[in-house]
Amino acid sequence: MRELSGDVRHLSINAATARKQLTLPALIEACARRGIGAIGPWRDQIQAVGLVQVARQVRDAGLTLTGYCRGGFFPAVDAAGLSGALEDNRRAVDEAKALGASCLVLVAGGLPGALAGAPAHKDMGLVRAQVRDGIAATLEHARSVGLPLAIEPLHPMQAADRACINTLEQALDICEELDPGRSGALGVALDVYHTWWDPKLADQIARAGRERLLAYHVCDWLVPTRDLVNDRGMMGDGIIELKKIRGLVEAAGYAGHVEVEICSQAWWSRPADELLDTCVERYQSVV
Amino acid sequence: MRELSGDVRHLSINAATARKQLTLPALIEACARRGIGAIGPWRDQIQAVGLVQVARQVRDAGLTLTGYCRGGFFPAVDAAGLSGALEDNRRAVDEAKALGASCLVLVAGGLPGALAGAPAHKDMGLVRAQVRDGIAATLEHARSVGLPLAIEPLHPMQAADRACINTLEQALDICEELDPGRSGALGVALDVYHTWWDPKLADQIARAGRERLLAYHVCDWLVPTRDLVNDRGMMGDGIIELKKIRGLVEAAGYAGHVEVEICSQAWWSRPADELLDTCVERYQSVV
Repeated sequence: MRELSGDVRHLSINAATARKQLTLPALIEACARRGIGAIGPWRDQIQAVGLVQVARQVRDAGLTLTGYCRGGFFPAVDAAGLSGALEDNRRAVDEAKALGASCLVLVAGGLPGALAGAPAHKDMGLVRAQVRDGIAATLEHARSVGLPLAIEPLHPMQAADRACINTLEQALDICEELDPGRSGALGVALDVYHTWWDPKLADQIARAGRERLLAYHVCDWLVPTRDLVNDRGMMGDGIIELKKIRGLVEAAGYAGHVEVEICSQAWWSRPADELLDTCVERYQSVV
Repeated sequence: MRELSGDVRHLSINAATARKQLTLPALIEACARRGIGAIGPWRDQIQAVGLVQVARQVRDAGLTLTGYCRGGFFPAVDAAGLSGALEDNRRAVDEAKALGASCLVLVAGGLPGALAGAPAHKDMGLVRAQVRDGIAATLEHARSVGLPLAIEPLHPMQAADRACINTLEQALDICEELDPGRSGALGVALDVYHTWWDPKLADQIARAGRERLLAYHVCDWLVPTRDLVNDRGMMGDGIIELKKIRGLVEAAGYAGHVEVEICSQAWWSRPADELLDTCVERYQSVV
């Protein structure tokens, strides 16, 4: 297992973590100043600044781009919606490639309309089939440009509205079906927040192996958790066995960045410097 | 698949549903008046009235008692805590037997102290081992008195504080280990709220079969869900495919009651008659 306490070269900050405090250029600057090795940018943040400018700033700062967030949201109620989603994912692949991101993170999507509180239907089997087909189509384009896709299983409490892929096993089953050769073109983004509870986690991490583990995200699970989306905890403040899970991931061959993704109303209301300094401190002490 | 729209003989009301409005005697009376076939009582409610009196009232009203809620909460930080939990479960078995309940529902328990917001440690592997051992010990006593135990997997969002058994597959693995002969002494309580999201649900229901399916609970998953514990929906108000899942359960051989368990701040604040009448109406129209 790697020793991470000495420096922060393998630390990545997912830009959602400081979304309310910092623009992407300000985050890049703040990370570079601390010696943090990478960031994980979001699409809306890139669009607000401009892809070329962000790519140049990242390169000049010597940062790495871990996964680009996010593609996916494949399900739709009709053919136009389905093909619109595919077109959008194609663009996301191209953007990730132009940025030099290590992969495109795919959040599957759930029941159409559910995120807005008005689900068009209840057929989870249908949306899961649409997601599988959407990943297959996107993979074809992603392969052609040489950009890996990372399926991110989300916590079952987000199955209806955000992602109908809810366990690592389920994500790996799709990987095996669409990329049986383990080519590196298709894998998973493993976030401890979404997967820590899974009794099969250790087995499935071992099954994933180096070729499938494309990104590794950390934060913590608070007890109690008061919101299903924006109440993630700072590493060390909750009950996730962070060192143990990182040990499993590294034993399976993962040697990439450890990306901090904390979506938290509480942390969004604190100063950016306090937030980032705490991320660094906890990364070195408890991750 | 059974036709349930004609009467409510196979409907059971879990007493948590009207916990804030009705005492247990009042609930029994209200259910009997509507022709509802069964109730699922909670231990604290029984203790408030007296076991003998409840047993007599239930018998006189011609009701059935579906699962007795609840045993479990096996994990502890020391030997005294572990044996105290076993002693308590032994009493719960005896109470369920004296009441004539069809089974004792087991909610495994999570990290010791977590329910009070102060988890004593983070070792999910340890608490899962303690739960397995606790069920094994309780099963020995339950077999001797002829009272089936029903393990209830809870939603993964409740893994830390309420139950470290979080999928039907995980519960069935324990059943298989401790009761390989499928004797009927050990099975599961399947609640759609906790399990609807599971991509392996259909397969695992089929695997469970008639001998393992000891109780079936319904309510609905609201979009959005605003609380991790007490924001369950009335059947039909959310996105769970209730008819489809009941079809799977009955195809596997289940022919028992359909028990409504709605823990909801919103419904607890409405009149009991409105709540129960709505349960009856939705049971007949959407379940």
